[in-house]
Amino acid sequence: MRNVAMVGGGMTRFGKYLDRGLKDLAREAVDAALECAGMDRSVPEVAVVGNAAAGLSTGQECVRAQVVLREMGIQEIPMVNTENACASSSTAFQLAWLYVASGMYDIALAVGMEKMYQQDKSRVFASFMAGTDVELVQQMLARMQAEAEKKAKEGGAEESGGPGKSRSVFMDLYAAGARFHMQRYGTTKEQFAKIAVKNHYHGSLNPHAQYREVYTLEEILASPPVAEPLTRLMCSPIGDGAAAAILVSEEKARRYTTKPVWVRGTALGTGKDARPPGISERVARSAYEMAGIGPEDIHVMEVHDATAPAEVFIYEELGLCPEGEGGRLIDEGVTELGGRIPVNTSGGLLSKGHPVGATGVAQIYEVFQQLRGEAGDRQVEGAKVGLTENGGGMVRGEAAATAVHILSV
Amino acid sequence: MRNVAMVGGGMTRFGKYLDRGLKDLAREAVDAALECAGMDRSVPEVAVVGNAAAGLSTGQECVRAQVVLREMGIQEIPMVNTENACASSSTAFQLAWLYVASGMYDIALAVGMEKMYQQDKSRVFASFMAGTDVELVQQMLARMQAEAEKKAKEGGAEESGGPGKSRSVFMDLYAAGARFHMQRYGTTKEQFAKIAVKNHYHGSLNPHAQYREVYTLEEILASPPVAEPLTRLMCSPIGDGAAAAILVSEEKARRYTTKPVWVRGTALGTGKDARPPGISERVARSAYEMAGIGPEDIHVMEVHDATAPAEVFIYEELGLCPEGEGGRLIDEGVTELGGRIPVNTSGGLLSKGHPVGATGVAQIYEVFQQLRGEAGDRQVEGAKVGLTENGGGMVRGEAAATAVHILSV
Repeated sequence: MRNVAMVGGGMTRFGKYLDRGLKDLAREAVDAALECAGMDRSVPEVAVVGNAAAGLSTGQECVRAQVVLREMGIQEIPMVNTENACASSSTAFQLAWLYVASGMYDIALAVGMEKMYQQDKSRVFASFMAGTDVELVQQMLARMQAEAEKKAKEGGAEESGGPGKSRSVFMDLYAAGARFHMQRYGTTKEQFAKIAVKNHYHGSLNPHAQYREVYTLEEILASPPVAEPLTRLMCSPIGDGAAAAILVSEEKARRYTTKPVWVRGTALGTGKDARPPGISERVARSAYEMAGIGPEDIHVMEVHDATAPAEVFIYEELGLCPEGEGGRLIDEGVTELGGRIPVNTSGGLLSKGHPVGATGVAQIYEVFQQLRGEAGDRQVEGAKVGLTENGGGMVRGEAAATAVHILSV
Repeated sequence: MRNVAMVGGGMTRFGKYLDRGLKDLAREAVDAALECAGMDRSVPEVAVVGNAAAGLSTGQECVRAQVVLREMGIQEIPMVNTENACASSSTAFQLAWLYVASGMYDIALAVGMEKMYQQDKSRVFASFMAGTDVELVQQMLARMQAEAEKKAKEGGAEESGGPGKSRSVFMDLYAAGARFHMQRYGTTKEQFAKIAVKNHYHGSLNPHAQYREVYTLEEILASPPVAEPLTRLMCSPIGDGAAAAILVSEEKARRYTTKPVWVRGTALGTGKDARPPGISERVARSAYEMAGIGPEDIHVMEVHDATAPAEVFIYEELGLCPEGEGGRLIDEGVTELGGRIPVNTSGGLLSKGHPVGATGVAQIYEVFQQLRGEAGDRQVEGAKVGLTENGGGMVRGEAAATAVHILSV
């Protein structure tokens, strides 16, 4: 396979944009990436667009790439639409890479985009349910409904199974994992909270982050409880946004930049999170093997902190520390800016935000900026090799898609 | 890039299966393809699944591949979900090919699947609208609604803009193209009808075809009018179904079959249908160039006859005859079984059926069977090279995705 360089990247600030649609968000991100590469809209030869929720949130299915790209005058090139829940756009990135690495095309555009905030809140709810087996969800909702009706008949005034309740099913899974980790390894709620402190601090330095407030440990712990040990500030928000990347062959790279960032490893997988070894561990191993390096060679990392405890688990799965020692890592400051290997310098999903289908490429864009020395106040000095980990969806207890990418200068 | 062989293929019969879901349809097709390749469910290393309408018809988004494959015990491998309207699964086939051709994996599974028949008919309607820009459709529906209300106020008893009416918007486009062809080149309604006679005859020989009745020219012309010159039997039906293909590296091919079918060309594009040259013409040229052959070298062909006139246009776009002479080709019997280059031996979309996301891989499976000499009563003697053409979606007057594949023994 050929060497592939990322020569441009861009994104919108993640946020709540009730008055902006996918076309507008995608245009901003794609134009930023093209400008970064000094490239005209007519140059990309193929485009792969990742999106998770547009079908449910806006009704746009099937031709999402064509709808947003045609609107901005990108046309007459092959366009591929891909979905993989929260890992939709890291999947798009892999496919764009594949088009170039294989030799089929020289210049590929990868886009991630998502529109979650809607006037109609039931659509927001529907979006949350999309990353799993909808038949099973419907069965679960029917059971919850039946239970609520039964309770109502018995005279109780319990809340029924509405959106808020159902979202917490996902958070319940993370919370259960966190409690297991606490019980088995002695990890503390404070350690999880420190992840949130760190990521909110990092996000405060990132102009693209949705939330830029800094919080103390006490504030994180005192925010409204979601599911023990999770508080609201330990959970990623919903959001709108888009991110884009331009990938080119080695031959073409020098034409567009003096600072190419090379894609050294790309791996995608499906499987159980439970060890030994969990899906993230297996996928990371494939990516490390492809890149010919190990976790000790990584200088900066963006990982899927859908909740704060998830980041602790990922430390262990990606080999930053032995099993059970993720809590110690955060205590020692290893993963904060200034530490040995800063993680989620962008603010992560917790602070930068998590517009589902946009997250994968946005993570890659953060690492791209870091490796080029363009990360401003949150720059990791001397960062030469970076990694992203992006997970998405859950089907019958298995992660539907986990993607790991390794980039280097 | 490496040579890639298709070593297994399979499909469900296309049809109306109110009691079967996507999981069941996909399992039948995947198992048939695996059995054809003498391969266990645990062997494929990566899977790409194309589907267009599940989000709208069943609510399943994001992780459609994982939901259907996990159910049948295929797990722990990378899974990619792709959409491209009616060309969803030919896009999936290209991606599966790319995974093997690039050297990233040795064994890839490509699946196309669709469930269009629903108890709730409004969902069927929604599916039709999916292949275009939904914002524009909503604007159009709002205009139609406003007009209908205006007419109702004026005392008229006109039908309002319901599903039947709106579907005909797509058929209107095909009808307008057909009238243009008639006017410009002298093509006749009878010539279009002969396409339907041919394809329904071919379909009568195909056990996987949804409709297996044979019709006379008179019967085609006398079937209910849709939009001049189209009658109902000149339009493809909706349907349910799935199709699957197994692609392997040259190195692995001999392990699984003594009759490999090689992928010689694959091309995908977006763009205007209008000449010179239209999107199908441009995409076909790329595929011919990649395969190092021309239209004169093709022995059998499956094309996207969403309506009978479309097949006439495609003859010209793919280079089977000069511009304007498509009608003559059908008159001379060139494209029927026994002719110089039989087209749509499967029955095509008109007779085999058109479960949107399943169509691309099903076309490829027909060519696969033909090239292996396994097409039974509809076998084209001595077929060594075949082509498929699959078109999908429409955004601002441009075909969203057109895919051409060339295979050979």
